[in-house]
Amino acid sequence: MMEFLHDSYEAVDRWLVSAGCGKIAVVTDTVVAPMIPEVFGEDSFVARLPRVVIPSGEDNKNLATLASVWEGFGSIGLTRRDMVVNIGGGVVTDLGGFAAATFKRGVRFVNIPTTLLCAADASVGGKTAVNFGGLKNEVGVFAQPEMTFICSRFFTTLSQDEFYSGYAEIVKMGFITGEKETMSLLASANVIEDPERVMQAVRFAVEGKAKVVDQDPTEKGWRKVLNFGHTAGHAFESLLRGRGVAVTHGCAVAHGMLVALILSHIILGADSHMIHIYARFLRANYGHLPIGCDDYPELVRLMLHDKKNASQTEIRFVLLEAPGSPRIDIPVDPKTVLQALDLYRDL
Amino acid sequence: MMEFLHDSYEAVDRWLVSAGCGKIAVVTDTVVAPMIPEVFGEDSFVARLPRVVIPSGEDNKNLATLASVWEGFGSIGLTRRDMVVNIGGGVVTDLGGFAAATFKRGVRFVNIPTTLLCAADASVGGKTAVNFGGLKNEVGVFAQPEMTFICSRFFTTLSQDEFYSGYAEIVKMGFITGEKETMSLLASANVIEDPERVMQAVRFAVEGKAKVVDQDPTEKGWRKVLNFGHTAGHAFESLLRGRGVAVTHGCAVAHGMLVALILSHIILGADSHMIHIYARFLRANYGHLPIGCDDYPELVRLMLHDKKNASQTEIRFVLLEAPGSPRIDIPVDPKTVLQALDLYRDL
Repeated sequence: MMEFLHDSYEAVDRWLVSAGCGKIAVVTDTVVAPMIPEVFGEDSFVARLPRVVIPSGEDNKNLATLASVWEGFGSIGLTRRDMVVNIGGGVVTDLGGFAAATFKRGVRFVNIPTTLLCAADASVGGKTAVNFGGLKNEVGVFAQPEMTFICSRFFTTLSQDEFYSGYAEIVKMGFITGEKETMSLLASANVIEDPERVMQAVRFAVEGKAKVVDQDPTEKGWRKVLNFGHTAGHAFESLLRGRGVAVTHGCAVAHGMLVALILSHIILGADSHMIHIYARFLRANYGHLPIGCDDYPELVRLMLHDKKNASQTEIRFVLLEAPGSPRIDIPVDPKTVLQALDLYRDL
Repeated sequence: MMEFLHDSYEAVDRWLVSAGCGKIAVVTDTVVAPMIPEVFGEDSFVARLPRVVIPSGEDNKNLATLASVWEGFGSIGLTRRDMVVNIGGGVVTDLGGFAAATFKRGVRFVNIPTTLLCAADASVGGKTAVNFGGLKNEVGVFAQPEMTFICSRFFTTLSQDEFYSGYAEIVKMGFITGEKETMSLLASANVIEDPERVMQAVRFAVEGKAKVVDQDPTEKGWRKVLNFGHTAGHAFESLLRGRGVAVTHGCAVAHGMLVALILSHIILGADSHMIHIYARFLRANYGHLPIGCDDYPELVRLMLHDKKNASQTEIRFVLLEAPGSPRIDIPVDPKTVLQALDLYRDL
C-alpha cells in the first residue's frame, strides 16, 4: 500500500495511531532526523516516537549499523506485535527494512522515503539489505513494507544532483512503459521547481514499478526490465567511483540508458529518433561523463562481471524494440558494445 | 519436504545432484564435521562438498558466527541460484538457515539434523535465527528448508542425555495428538536401543508438528500448542542454568510437562491417571530436578516474564482437556501455579 501526500501529512499520524501497535520505533539517519519535526510538526505523533538514528551515508549500510539498530529496537522494547517506521533515503529504508524483517523474526514496517531515488525506486519491490564483505546488498531479504508514504515536502530539500539521480529512475520507467510517457517525462524541463509535477512523476514511476514487481516479486525473470540502462550505468559508476570521481547512481544510469538506446537501434532495429531526443535531455540535465576510448576495455570487463550478468563471454542487456516494448536478456558481443560506446561519446 | 533414511543414505547424494545447482556449500560444526564422511562415505557427493565449519555450541549461535558463514559463502562463490546444506544440531540448522535465507536475499537450503531434538523439533517449522543482545533467537526469519533428510545413523552417536532431550519433544507431540499415541511413546522403554522405533517416533513428531505449523506458519495462534510443557520448562531451565546446573532443554521441558498435566487436572478437570503414568516415565528417564519450595517465587517470576507470556499478572499455559485436546492461552493465577509445583514435587 502506498499513499501520496502533498503539503499535508496528518495522514501519517492517523494511520500510525490506527495501526494499533503497542510500540513504534522510527529508524532514520543523522541528516533526516532534524527534518522530521519540521516536516510533520513538532507535536505530531510521528515526530515524538522513539528513534534509532544511524549515521548517514552508504558507508554505514553495514552489519555494525544493522546490529546497532537491533540493539535500539531492544532498548525501545519492541515486540513482534509492534512496528518500525523508516524515514530516510535508500540506506535507511534498505537497512531499517532488513532490521525490522529480522527482529524477532519479523516486525511490520512502514517506509517514508525522503529522496526521489528512494521514493521512485527503493521504496517499491520489497528489497531490504546491507552491504557485506565489500559487496553491495550482499545480505538481506525480500520483505514488503506494510505502507509507504510519499511526502512531497522532503523532495524540496534535495540538491539538483540528488534530484536528477532519482529522476533518472523515473525516466527509466517511462522507457519501459511507452513512448507517450517517455516524451512527457523528457519534456519536463525544470520539473524540479514544480512539486506537483514531481509528485505526478513519482506516482507514475512507483505504480509502474509495482506492476512489474507484482509479476515477479523475487526477481526470477521479467523484473529484469527494471535493469534498463543499468548494465552500462553500473560500469560507468564503478569506473568513475574507482577513480574518485563523484557520480550519482542516477546520473550513471541516465548515461547508461543512452548506451542501451543505441544498442536497441543497432540490435533490435529500434527507431533512432528517440536516441536524439534523449541525448538532448541527457546533456541538459546530466552533463558529460569523463570517459575516453582508453576506458573501453575496463568498461567491457565491468559489464561482463556485473552481478546480474549470467554469462562470461557476452553481455546481457535490457533493450527496447520501442519505448514500452522492453526485451530482457539480449546477448550483445563486446565488439558491438564498443561500437555503441563510440556512438554514445559522439552524441 | 522430508525424507526418512534408515541405514542407506545415497538418496541424499542423488537428490543434491539432481537439484541442478552450480554450487553447494555445507554448513556444519566442529563436532559433526568429522562424522560426515563416516556416515555418508568418504567418496560420497555430500562429503566432498566445500564446507563452512562453525564452532559447536549454543554460545556460538551469534552474529559473529553468522558473519563468518556469510564470508564462507562468499569465498565459495555461492550465487542466489546455488544451495546450502546444513548438517548439525539446532544451532547449525537455525544459524545456517538464517545465513542461507539472507545471503543475496535468499539461497535455497536443505537441513540434515544430527540430533534427535533438532530432527523432532527444530527441523520443522521454518524458524531460523541467531541469539543477539543476550536473548535467544532474537533475530531471524521464517524460511522453509527445501528438503529435510532425517538420517538415523546420526542418532546412534548421541549421549543418553542428548537422546532424551529430543525424546521429550516427541512425547510432547504425543500429548498434543492423542492418548493412544502418548501411551505408545511412554511405553517405549529403552527406545534408545532400537533405531527403527526411534525413526518411527521422529516421523510421528515431525509429521505432527508439520500439521500444526501448516495451520499457523508465523505463530499467530494455534501453533502455541507446541509450547505445551514449555512455560514451566523454560523456568526450570533458566533457574538451574543460572546456578550453573547442567540441564538439557528437553529434560526441563519433560519436567515442565508434568506441571502442565497437574494444572490440566486442576483447571480443566483432566483425568488424573495420566499424571501418574507420566510421572513414572519422567522419574525413570529424566530423574529429579534440584528444586525446592524456596525456588517458587523465582520460578513464578520467570514464568510471568517468559517471552511467550503476554500478560503481567497471570501466566498463560497450554493445557490439556485430555491428551489430543490441547487448549492454548489458559490463564493461571500464580497461587494455582504454586499449588501445582507442590504437587509436582510430591510426585
